[in-house]
Amino acid sequence: MNDTFDFDRYDRVRPIRWTGDALELLDQRRLPFHVEYVRCETSEDVFDSIRALTVRGAPAIGIAAAWGLVLAAREIKAEDGAAAVLALEPAITHLNDARPTAVNLAWALARMRRVLASAGSDWREVLEREAGAIADEDLAANRHMGSLGAALIAPGSGVLTHCNTGSLATAGFGTALGVIRAGVAQQRIAQVFAGETRPWLQGARLTAWELQQDGIAPVLVADSAAAHLMTTGQVQWVIVGADRICANGDTANKIGTYQLAIAARHHGVKFMVAAPSSTVDMAMPDGAGIDIEERDAAELFHLGGVATAAGGITAWNPVFDITPHGLIDAIVTERGVIMQPDATAMQAAFGA
Amino acid sequence: MNDTFDFDRYDRVRPIRWTGDALELLDQRRLPFHVEYVRCETSEDVFDSIRALTVRGAPAIGIAAAWGLVLAAREIKAEDGAAAVLALEPAITHLNDARPTAVNLAWALARMRRVLASAGSDWREVLEREAGAIADEDLAANRHMGSLGAALIAPGSGVLTHCNTGSLATAGFGTALGVIRAGVAQQRIAQVFAGETRPWLQGARLTAWELQQDGIAPVLVADSAAAHLMTTGQVQWVIVGADRICANGDTANKIGTYQLAIAARHHGVKFMVAAPSSTVDMAMPDGAGIDIEERDAAELFHLGGVATAAGGITAWNPVFDITPHGLIDAIVTERGVIMQPDATAMQAAFGA
Repeated sequence: MNDTFDFDRYDRVRPIRWTGDALELLDQRRLPFHVEYVRCETSEDVFDSIRALTVRGAPAIGIAAAWGLVLAAREIKAEDGAAAVLALEPAITHLNDARPTAVNLAWALARMRRVLASAGSDWREVLEREAGAIADEDLAANRHMGSLGAALIAPGSGVLTHCNTGSLATAGFGTALGVIRAGVAQQRIAQVFAGETRPWLQGARLTAWELQQDGIAPVLVADSAAAHLMTTGQVQWVIVGADRICANGDTANKIGTYQLAIAARHHGVKFMVAAPSSTVDMAMPDGAGIDIEERDAAELFHLGGVATAAGGITAWNPVFDITPHGLIDAIVTERGVIMQPDATAMQAAFGA
Repeated sequence: MNDTFDFDRYDRVRPIRWTGDALELLDQRRLPFHVEYVRCETSEDVFDSIRALTVRGAPAIGIAAAWGLVLAAREIKAEDGAAAVLALEPAITHLNDARPTAVNLAWALARMRRVLASAGSDWREVLEREAGAIADEDLAANRHMGSLGAALIAPGSGVLTHCNTGSLATAGFGTALGVIRAGVAQQRIAQVFAGETRPWLQGARLTAWELQQDGIAPVLVADSAAAHLMTTGQVQWVIVGADRICANGDTANKIGTYQLAIAARHHGVKFMVAAPSSTVDMAMPDGAGIDIEERDAAELFHLGGVATAAGGITAWNPVFDITPHGLIDAIVTERGVIMQPDATAMQAAFGA
């Protein structure tokens, strides 16, 4: 086994490009059939892109919002950072409203606001530099997390992942998919299974495509085949990302994550959450307080423009669910690994 | 609460029509957008329709195969039933091969073969009468089962079902969906949730449409939202059908059933299997011996002709899974209810 590897060899996709005067977002609604970047020239363009899922994935949303604030700054005049904060407050509030569940969005905007508040007359450069730093640090965090998470995986293991937590969901490399990339590179992971992740099919459309770009061949399964897959002994770890991790380790993530955690525990399969520390929300005691976004029921009635149900049907379309910390074996951030997470362990790692 | 009700009011759809010289099958690949019957004039037409899922659902497959044998009989000459059995053996074997997992197919063909073997010169009439009897008995069994199952459900309950186990999957009324129909009619069931059932979307396309025809409004959910739904307290029973029930109560059913059973147990939600006694296979000791059909991986790459994943991806597409008897609270057949099924209880109910 070789624990070092060429990161770039396993990480070729970039969803977010800053051109210096616009933000280009790889349109994740059109992948894998069309590889197209959408050009955002205003913060409203960025807001629309986040809401419409042109860009998605908790860390990527935070990075896009940071650049959105840089674009918003072009529309105001201010002598210094403090004045700019006042003028940008509506834009910050508005961007923050684009998606409710992931905490990284609020985290990135709060970080931008903080550096701006103490900036002088060069506040525009400070703001732009900070957005770049958020993206750079995310990539570095993911690579470090990848190595930390992979070290938990015994050679020859099979893993199952859900949704897309890869380069497409981050500045690059990915969170859970970063752990998987590292695990494959280190020959710890022999087989990757990807759940298709209805209704939006992030697994089928995004994860499968992204891994393909890097020469990793996943096996796609229906979301409801996961427990049956576990009975075959081919999966040793379920590895997922997070949209918000609470102070007790409860984790909000893509709908279906909780169901996988229950099935994993039932079969003695280990369950890992990998996310940057910006995903941790120590102000949220537990999962009960998290606002679970519900999207349009129509997402369950259509797929790629094709109807999948008769008209007049009602649907319930929650986009996230909460996995209680008791079902999680390891939370991996760039700061380290927390085994059997609970409030005490989280406080030790992330307390003020 | 009113435990009697007008069956026909809640049961308007018929998937199988015998015209006297052909079998008409409601094309379940085209529902709910096209309501069209496919005309089968030969047993090969019936074989193709079973394999292609024009007709699906364990009981409906058995009924269609019985009529398929009636059509096969038109192509042979025989003095009496014993001679006809010999001549029809290849047709019986061929029809039996159309789908491997559901036992009702083999059960119906064995029953047809048995009456044929002892028939005289009127063997053609005997054969046709028997196919009709299989269909009639299925409908009667479903209606009885519906009442037996519904009696287990407390008024005001919410239920979750999977796949389609309704009129479309049977001669009429349905198995699990028959229990749900009866429960709604008796005002025991206040809310029906239906999982969409990837990859074939039987829940979204068939169950939602079928219930709509009868004035019952289900709420559609993604398969992976079931556990999250259970945390809301809106579901008291998961009610599913079966393709084969083993001698110890282990049950083969649509992929995803097992995952629901695990989630139900985790939340203290009850789990009911409703199926005609023809689904019980006392010759199969437990689920380990059941042949789990795997269908074309392409079913995970397309939906209604629209691609859902990039080319070159691998997929695993098992169509059924096994729910161990220990996760089942009740097995309901037209012969009665078995609570906490195991080998002893099954032997008492179905032993020779």
